[in-house]
Formats: sequence, structure tokens, C-alpha cells
Amino acid sequence: MQFELTDEFLQKLREAISARNGAFVVEQFKELYPPDIAVIFNELQKEEAKYVYSQLDEQIAADVLVELDDDVREDFLASLTSKEIAEHIDNMDSDDAADVIAELPDSVQDEVLSHMEDSEQASDIVELLNYDENTAGGLMATELVRVHVNSNSIECVREIRAQADAVENIYAIYVVDDDEKLVGLLSLKKLVISPANSKIADIYDPKIISVKTNTDVEEVANIMDKYNLVVLPVIDALGRLVGRITVDDVVDVRREEETEDLQKMAGMEALDEPYMNVSIWGILKKRAGWLVILFLGETLTATAMGFFENEIAKVVILSLFVPLIISSGGNTGSQASTLVIRSLALGEITIRNWWAIIKREIKVGFILGLMLGLIGFLRVAVWSQFTNIYGPHWMEIALTVGTSLVGVVLWGNIIGSLFPLILKRFGFDPAVSSAPFVATLVDITGLIIYFSVASLLLGHVLM
Amino acid sequence: MQFELTDEFLQKLREAISARNGAFVVEQFKELYPPDIAVIFNELQKEEAKYVYSQLDEQIAADVLVELDDDVREDFLASLTSKEIAEHIDNMDSDDAADVIAELPDSVQDEVLSHMEDSEQASDIVELLNYDENTAGGLMATELVRVHVNSNSIECVREIRAQADAVENIYAIYVVDDDEKLVGLLSLKKLVISPANSKIADIYDPKIISVKTNTDVEEVANIMDKYNLVVLPVIDALGRLVGRITVDDVVDVRREEETEDLQKMAGMEALDEPYMNVSIWGILKKRAGWLVILFLGETLTATAMGFFENEIAKVVILSLFVPLIISSGGNTGSQASTLVIRSLALGEITIRNWWAIIKREIKVGFILGLMLGLIGFLRVAVWSQFTNIYGPHWMEIALTVGTSLVGVVLWGNIIGSLFPLILKRFGFDPAVSSAPFVATLVDITGLIIYFSVASLLLGHVLM
Repeated sequence: MQFELTDEFLQKLREAISARNGAFVVEQFKELYPPDIAVIFNELQKEEAKYVYSQLDEQIAADVLVELDDDVREDFLASLTSKEIAEHIDNMDSDDAADVIAELPDSVQDEVLSHMEDSEQASDIVELLNYDENTAGGLMATELVRVHVNSNSIECVREIRAQADAVENIYAIYVVDDDEKLVGLLSLKKLVISPANSKIADIYDPKIISVKTNTDVEEVANIMDKYNLVVLPVIDALGRLVGRITVDDVVDVRREEETEDLQKMAGMEALDEPYMNVSIWGILKKRAGWLVILFLGETLTATAMGFFENEIAKVVILSLFVPLIISSGGNTGSQASTLVIRSLALGEITIRNWWAIIKREIKVGFILGLMLGLIGFLRVAVWSQFTNIYGPHWMEIALTVGTSLVGVVLWGNIIGSLFPLILKRFGFDPAVSSAPFVATLVDITGLIIYFSVASLLLGHVLM
Repeated sequence: MQFELTDEFLQKLREAISARNGAFVVEQFKELYPPDIAVIFNELQKEEAKYVYSQLDEQIAADVLVELDDDVREDFLASLTSKEIAEHIDNMDSDDAADVIAELPDSVQDEVLSHMEDSEQASDIVELLNYDENTAGGLMATELVRVHVNSNSIECVREIRAQADAVENIYAIYVVDDDEKLVGLLSLKKLVISPANSKIADIYDPKIISVKTNTDVEEVANIMDKYNLVVLPVIDALGRLVGRITVDDVVDVRREEETEDLQKMAGMEALDEPYMNVSIWGILKKRAGWLVILFLGETLTATAMGFFENEIAKVVILSLFVPLIISSGGNTGSQASTLVIRSLALGEITIRNWWAIIKREIKVGFILGLMLGLIGFLRVAVWSQFTNIYGPHWMEIALTVGTSLVGVVLWGNIIGSLFPLILKRFGFDPAVSSAPFVATLVDITGLIIYFSVASLLLGHVLM
């Protein structure tokens, strides 16, 4: 069902382009949707793309431009005159138009705006450019159908006809009062099934959910998700209707948010752009900071082990199990922190539940610790029957490894689940409590647990 | 703008409930939406909830039931008779109805279905229950507006009136032929702006995207995202229109998918339910398997270090840097694997790009390695000026630590970025290449790198 770009298709298309066979190109693209055409464009040379572009219907061409990868679009626009860009912008929804214009160099922005035929669209775009991109204002489009509460359904249909070109999909008609204040909504369904000359006041629904222009995009996404909304009206500080946000805009917001969380959880700063569009220096900037912090934290492991240098010198075998012990704590902690961070993000748990969560993770951590501890004990004990590597004190060593594992795994699990809750409590992003971060904390404390248990159980050997 | 549940509100509500003050309850709930009411219900006792429920409008009541937490709903339904459940089911959309019925015990399912007044709805539900929940059929609802391609807009409006109660939000009218085959769609906008007695054949759009009943839900989500669809029609093997999927259903699918990916990336199996609904044993089952596998893998670190036992015995100080060295490789690898896994999931990169990705990560890894290596070298070198802990060979030790870090970090970065690509290449889920998994791989090889460098640079001391 979905279009798949094949090398064969690309080959034929290229031949048609170099032969300037417009009819073939038009034929090929007739059945495709703008997102598919954008996929093809991303593969074409700039000159090829320009030719294909000139063959497309102007509305389709504008939609394709919106769907292109950022860098491809940037390249492509750089090859057009301001006047040509303005023509495409005229055919875009105001929110997409503002996004595309925002990417242009400042000097080009003004030129493009001045070349636009639709001066209302131009002034809408200028207004949209003023909003912070992380707010509802930065996300909204201005194209919408509004009717006055005192009008009737015939006037409403007339208004829809007037806006039909500008608003591709009409999901709702917004009802406003004399002051342009949003007072309710009228579904197209209700309009269609109501008698032909109904008063809007009799058929509209005054119960309506809206957001302000300065509402954070994350809250916008939460509201649309919670109330299963397809479109959400945006009002200004005076309650006047200024725009609307559609669900597809929010899908992108959600996706960016998830990506950022994931990257933070991997112990790095969030990239603001797709991986391949970020330069090597850009990637380094996002990764190096946390790596260095984690590294400096981890140097404390050397300090911690330094305290036990004499013990290690006497029973070198102890050092062999260091990676095993600390990684077990780290792995358990990384599981726990991911579970808690994700559940917090989904609203399945809140910090009010913290004690229930910790109680539960203490139990889980203890059982996991017993399990790994037993395997660790057996590893040493069974091995000792076949080799002499653990020497005469193999039993004490096996017990040290087993007991430490119970403690370190339990501890890792507690730290892993508690830390995101603490961060959240103090207003930080819980996702910062990354697996590497938890692992570093657990490494240091895990070493202390391990060597303390060793001192206790191997005391007579170490004297 | 959003409703916030306060203890105060809950207190007042509880008092009104025990006083059987129905008017107050109705007043409080009048302004709220079903998802908000569900939040309140999740906090109430069963008997309290039953009373409030009896006061709600029956359509709202059904919507609230759909929005409740799974366990609260299960509890609540268990306290109702099959006839009462059937009444609520009658008021639900077929997809929600099927989901709710699927949760009931088998014997209750049949009773509820037999009590339903709307026999068409009942047979639709029975049909929906047959579809795999991971396919479009399992996600779709059967309520939709269809018109014959040979009818006209007056008949179309009549059909919309007939369906108005069953279909809450009408986003599109589907056009079918004599065989019930889907041939196109008519937007409500087009219907409204077209002359009153238009032929459907003249105004409908034959270009329509649809999925089959057996299309995987992930592909459904991808298609809706890609083409910015709010609703997607579902056809059977013969091309006949059987249902439609709305974007809010897909939001849930996406969210579950992301959660599963995240949990896999943390080195565990995906939970199938919200964290708090899974029993401790359930959690253990999902976590223990991977922890044991990682543990067994990590025991190889003890084996690897065993080969260098003599070196450690001679220069105990070497063991102090083991956690620092291996964790640096692990952290770098976890960054790289997360970047690659996420970019693959978003379609920003494909395995066809593998060489470009690896080339880039070799450069990044080398620079990060140089950075950490330098810090590691300075850590030992500077420290040695103030203490005697590193002994006379501090320079060799500093060089060993610094050089190994370059190697281990570079290696961790290569493994971290390469592994998800390899998994994907062989048809596995790249998310399984979790940070703990990569760290374990890197720990073992990192130790070999470290001690090999040490043998080389400290050879004369170790002889």
C-alpha cells in the first residue's frame, strides 16, 4: 500500500528528466502523495529536483517543499529567487510557511515576505514568527473557519466556501462573539444534520477546550492526547481566537520529546536535529560534556579502590571480580531507572507514590541480588573444584562475591529507582538520571560494599 | 485550563456522595470531560463510584468507563450485572466496546453480548473480537458513514443523519461501489460547499489511502504519521470497506511501542502493562532473564583479568583503574548505540548508510578517546606530584591509562554504533542492543586492551 522508492524507479525518472520528458514525470507523480514525492526529492540532484518541481501542481509543490528534509530544502530554496520562494509560501498553510521562512537567512526573509501576493497571509506569518517555537503560538496555523454566534447556518456555509481554499481539512467551525472571543464550536456534522436555516446559537456547543498562545507545546500535546482531540483552538490573553493546532503537528512534538528523553537517558545532551544533519563537532559538543562529568565521577572509583590497595595486594584474586560486581549493580540500576523514568513520563506513577515504588524495588532488588549472588557463588565454588586459581581460600572468596552481589544489586536497584524520583521532586528532568549516571554512582558505592564484605569475610587472610 | 484533581475537591465530593446529594454531584461533573471524570473515579471507592456513575448521563458514563485504568474498570465491572454492562457497551464505539468485552471472563462475555439491545452492534463486536489486536482489524471501529458512488448529496446527508448518533466525530464519508468496495472519499467540507443536489460521482476524491484488516498496527501508525491522516479506512481481502481507525487509537500504539523500545534498551524485556499493574513476579520475569545473561557474559571479565593476574600482582595500582577504563568505554558505547537505534527507528538513517555512520563514529570516538585519555593521563601525572601512591613508575602508569582510554573509548564507540546496525541487518530488533549489552561487550574487550597496553608500556617493570 505504501510507496517504496526503488533504484529502478529512480533510474527511469532520471532518464526522463534528462530527456526533459515532462509528460512521463507528471504521469509518475500523479498517483503519489507529497510525502512520497519528498522521499524521491531527497535522492535527486538539485537541477533534477528543480525540473520535477516545475512540473508539479503548485499546491502539491508547496506540500512537497514542507515535507523535504531540512538540509535538502535549505539547499533547494537557496537555488530559487525570493519571488519564486514567495509563490510557494503563498500556497502553504501559515504554520508551515512560518517554519520554512524561519529557516531562511534574515535578509531573504524580508524579501520573500514583500513578494508574497497574499498580504493577509504575509502579515499572519510575520505574527507567527514572533511566537516562541516551544509554545502553542509557535505551533498554530491561522487558517480556520469562524462564525459569529448570532449568525445562522447559511452564513456559516458561505464562510466555509470562502475559506475552502485556505483550509485544507475543516474539522470544526469556531464560534466567536462580538469581541472575537471564542465561545464554542460547531462540528461540521452538526451543521450538516441541522435544518437548513438554523441559528448558530441553537446548534453550537459552548463546551470547548482551548489553549493560550503561550501554553507550552508539551502541555498542548498532553491536552490533545488526554481529550483525544484532532484540532485545538488557540486564544490570546484576551480570549480571542487566533489560531488552531492540528494533531499531526503534535505528533512531531511528541516524537522530538521522546528522542530528547532517550538521548538524555543515554548520558548525553539531546541533539536538536536528526543525527545525520548534525556535524561531527555538533555531536561532540552534545556528548563530550556528560562523558567528562561521568569520567570525573568515575575517577572516584580509583580513589575508593585505593583505600583497599593492601587487601588487593594480599588477595589479588579479589580484583578479578571488580568488573563483574560493579556492572551487575549498574545493570540492575539502569533497568530500575528506566522503568521509573518512563512510568513518570506516562503519568502511570507520580512522586506521591514514591514509597510504594521504593518498597517494591527493594523487594525486586533483593530477589535479583539473591539470584545473581547465588550464580556468582557457584561460579567461584564450582570452578575451584577444577582449578587452583582461587587458592586455599576459595570458599571465603565465593562467599564474598555472592554476598557482595546481593548488596550491590539491591543497592543499584534502590539508587536506580530513587534517583529519578528525587530529580523530579526538585524540579529537574528525571531523564537526566541516565543509566550511565546511575551506573557511576553505583560503581563507587558498589566497590565500597564489595571490599568491606571482603575485609569482613577474609579478615583472617588479610591480617 | 486542564482539570487538576485536588484533595479538597475529593473531600467535598465524598461528603456529597455519602449524603446522596445527587444534584451536587451532577453539578460538579457537568463541566468535566470523561478523561477528567475517569481520573476522579480512579480515586473513589467502588461503592462511591457506583453512586456517581448512576448520576451520569449514559453516553458520558460509557466514555468514562473506556477511560478508566484497566484494573479499576475490571473491579468496577465485576460489581455490575451482565445486563448493566450490556447497557454501557451499547453506548460505546465498537472498537472500545470490543476492547472492554475482551477483558471480561469468557462466560460473562457471552452473557453481556446476549443482553445487548443493539444487535447490529453486538454482531460487529463479535466480529472485531476475531481480529488479532496487533492488526488494523483489532484497532478499527465499524461505525462510519458510507455512500454509494451513484447516489447524490441529499442521500448522503440523509445517511449522515442516520449515523449521527453512532459516529461521534465524522471526518470523512467513504464512497463505495455496488460490491461495497471502497472507491474513494468525500470530505464533509466538500459536501458542505457543493451545490445541494450534486452527484457523489462528481464530487468525491478517488485518491484514497487505506489498509487491510491484517496490516500490522505499527505500519498503520507509520502510514497515518507519514500522510498526516486523522482517520484511515480499513478494507478486507476483497477490498470491501469494513472499518476505520482514528488517530487517537494510533497514539496509544505509538506510545506502547516507544515504551517497549525503551525497556529493551535498558536491558530487559518489555513490560506489557503499566509498571504499577505488573506484579513483583511479573517484573522479575521481565528483568531477571537479561540480567542473568549479562551477568554470565560479564563473568568473562574475571576470566580476561585472570590472564593478567601476574601483572596485577606486580603492579597492584593497575587494578585501581579498571572500573574507570571499562566504564568509559561502556558510557561511550551506550551513547553511540542509543543514537543509532533511535535514528534507525525514526528512519533518519538506514542500514544502507552503515559505512557513513561507522566512519563518522570512528572520528567521534577517536576525539572523545583523546579527550578522556588526556584527562586520565593528567589525573595520574598531576596526582603523582603530590602523593607517592603511584610509585616510581607513575609516568608509565599515566601513559598506560591515557593510551588505553583512547583505545577503549574508540572501541566502545565502534561497537555501540555497529551492533544495532548488525542486529537490524539480520532482522532483529536493534533496540535489543541495549546499553548494558554493549557495555558488557566493551568491558571484556576493554580489559584486554588495557592490560595489553600495560604489558607493553610497563614491560620492564613487570619482568
